Amino acid sequence: MTPAESLTGFRWVEFPEGTEALRPDRLAEGFIAAGAAVGIKEDGAPDLALLASVGGPPSSAMVLTTNAVAAAPVRLCREGLDSERIGAVVVTSGNANCATGERGMEVARQVQGAVAEALDLDPTEVAIAQTGVIGVQLDPDPVVAAVPRLADRLSPEGGGEFAEAILTTDAGTKSLTVTNGGVTVSAQAKGAGMIEPGLATMLCFVQTDGVVGEPKAALDEAVGNTFNRISVDGQMSTNDTVVFQASGTSGLPLPDGLLDEALLQLALAIVAEGEGATRIARVSVEGADDPDQADRVARAIGNSPLVKTALFGRDPNWGRILQAAGAALKGEDLTGLDEEAVRADELGGPDDQVEIGIDLRRGDGSGHQYFSDLTHRYIEINAEYTT
Amino acid sequence: MTPAESLTGFRWVEFPEGTEALRPDRLAEGFIAAGAAVGIKEDGAPDLALLASVGGPPSSAMVLTTNAVAAAPVRLCREGLDSERIGAVVVTSGNANCATGERGMEVARQVQGAVAEALDLDPTEVAIAQTGVIGVQLDPDPVVAAVPRLADRLSPEGGGEFAEAILTTDAGTKSLTVTNGGVTVSAQAKGAGMIEPGLATMLCFVQTDGVVGEPKAALDEAVGNTFNRISVDGQMSTNDTVVFQASGTSGLPLPDGLLDEALLQLALAIVAEGEGATRIARVSVEGADDPDQADRVARAIGNSPLVKTALFGRDPNWGRILQAAGAALKGEDLTGLDEEAVRADELGGPDDQVEIGIDLRRGDGSGHQYFSDLTHRYIEINAEYTT
Repeated sequence: MTPAESLTGFRWVEFPEGTEALRPDRLAEGFIAAGAAVGIKEDGAPDLALLASVGGPPSSAMVLTTNAVAAAPVRLCREGLDSERIGAVVVTSGNANCATGERGMEVARQVQGAVAEALDLDPTEVAIAQTGVIGVQLDPDPVVAAVPRLADRLSPEGGGEFAEAILTTDAGTKSLTVTNGGVTVSAQAKGAGMIEPGLATMLCFVQTDGVVGEPKAALDEAVGNTFNRISVDGQMSTNDTVVFQASGTSGLPLPDGLLDEALLQLALAIVAEGEGATRIARVSVEGADDPDQADRVARAIGNSPLVKTALFGRDPNWGRILQAAGAALKGEDLTGLDEEAVRADELGGPDDQVEIGIDLRRGDGSGHQYFSDLTHRYIEINAEYTT
Repeated sequence: MTPAESLTGFRWVEFPEGTEALRPDRLAEGFIAAGAAVGIKEDGAPDLALLASVGGPPSSAMVLTTNAVAAAPVRLCREGLDSERIGAVVVTSGNANCATGERGMEVARQVQGAVAEALDLDPTEVAIAQTGVIGVQLDPDPVVAAVPRLADRLSPEGGGEFAEAILTTDAGTKSLTVTNGGVTVSAQAKGAGMIEPGLATMLCFVQTDGVVGEPKAALDEAVGNTFNRISVDGQMSTNDTVVFQASGTSGLPLPDGLLDEALLQLALAIVAEGEGATRIARVSVEGADDPDQADRVARAIGNSPLVKTALFGRDPNWGRILQAAGAALKGEDLTGLDEEAVRADELGGPDDQVEIGIDLRRGDGSGHQYFSDLTHRYIEINAEYTT
């Protein structure tokens, strides 16, 4: 075990005191997982991931994309899943099963059904997530055929295999296992942009052996403070999914902050690995009329290509921050603001993790957003990728 | 005189039949202009532009940015100008006079006052626009000193000087003079970055000798169909200004479409010259619940960095168009849409002016947006530019 600080290189992540990091292969007690290659990805990389709870569906919750073009697995999770009792999670990578019509829904149902049968669950207890190229039908047969073998290999040390098999263009796995006061949280994420070149998506799966009375409330709060505050390119995917499962086997409540900081660590890992990113930043907005306004302004600043290129170019250009804030509040009056209201120095500094901010001098509302820079590599990745 | 078609290389501009192009130096009857270098720009390029009507303030109207961080000249035009009687327009380039506080307002007032004195106008009859760097105080003395000399040089052939002196990072002047059935429209614009619907560091000045009974209504409609439908990088400027003046000396009404097409020509010239742009596109949205929804979706598609890089990379990636539409309508249901609903072929084709579209299959609302691609050069320009 190592102190959790060694696990995170991010200045904004502060695990509760006494938190220690375990090997990320190791899942929270009560969970088993595995991954395999079934040929969805042409390069033979792992593309089928399975995670199950031991001893029946635990307390659980889910957050899904609100993109109007929701993929088939997202629609199936909305319609054919009891999100408070998720006994297993199946993920395929390499094909998003999005814009695939009724045939895509049938494919998602077949995969869900195969997992339910192999693990002796009801189909409504099996969550499904898929990520990859949009608009191409997925052949379910190799997946369905592989599920029983994969179910036999599920292991408490399978977090690494699982984390690898959910990736698409990610540079590497994004996963962690942390423990504090006898309670463990393990989590696995993928995503290198809110949406990648035709390959969609941010996925995150979180398990704990802590006792969680209201998992949906806990997850919503944690996601609101983490994944909902990150932006690589301002694009919302058709497949975004976060699943939270709490086995409660430790008999102890989840320590305050453990879930939030674990998700923040993974959210920042996604930003830092955003397509072409070389630097990341947090923009804090103070003095807004209310927190919603502050968040809206922070998001506008974090999504501004002028601010993102200033981050890349190490240009302490406070005028661009002011302009983006003014655009977000068009019709209002911010003309009293000047250089003094803006913190932009670190844009021009040596650090790769940068703090910027603006004080709107209107009220007490505050908010923040994490974002990456906009670089040549982003253009290369997205212009050269061809459907 | 040449047919107006030879003036425009844009497939979307259709001047009324019989329209002919004059040299853009030539202003509509009743207007005179000139430009000079007064040292705001360090490279000695022209940076002071003056345009006046002959024989007192004509029928006129104005559109200003709604960015909450409005620059001093914008605030002065709101507070200290009779926009229905604009007798002269003064423009400085190289300094936006934005985020400059009360001192900046005083500077704008001094420039306005100097022009009023030189042309024997009331200060409330002098419109002012400024463009350039944000947050730096402008020394008014060289400007004020140069105004009388410039006023002496005003000429009906001064459109070219005027158009040149309003530029900042523009590659070249954007101006035109067109005539139809005895009525002439001349116009001069600038802008190459921070271009977004709602206006952007975009300036445009339009003169006609036609009789225009309701110039504000005519201008609002024309701007709504042109400058409010373009986007280079989704950024709204602090200084956007459009001024429309109608001397009425021709005694004839403005031909239908002449103003709109003139502004569309200049708006597209701005998009085509957007920072680093190599291709431009129109995205049309059909089948929306209403025109506002259609415009909102068109804007989201035109501002999507994934669509903009696909335009650059000549990738007919219909999934990105669908994803951007879905994000714009988050919470709604577009899952019935597939490849058939999207027109993306021209993205992959040889043309530099591309038509794309999506049919939302919900109602009868339609809308459109013009946008440029996102390229390496955009990154270079904005990452290497230093305050």
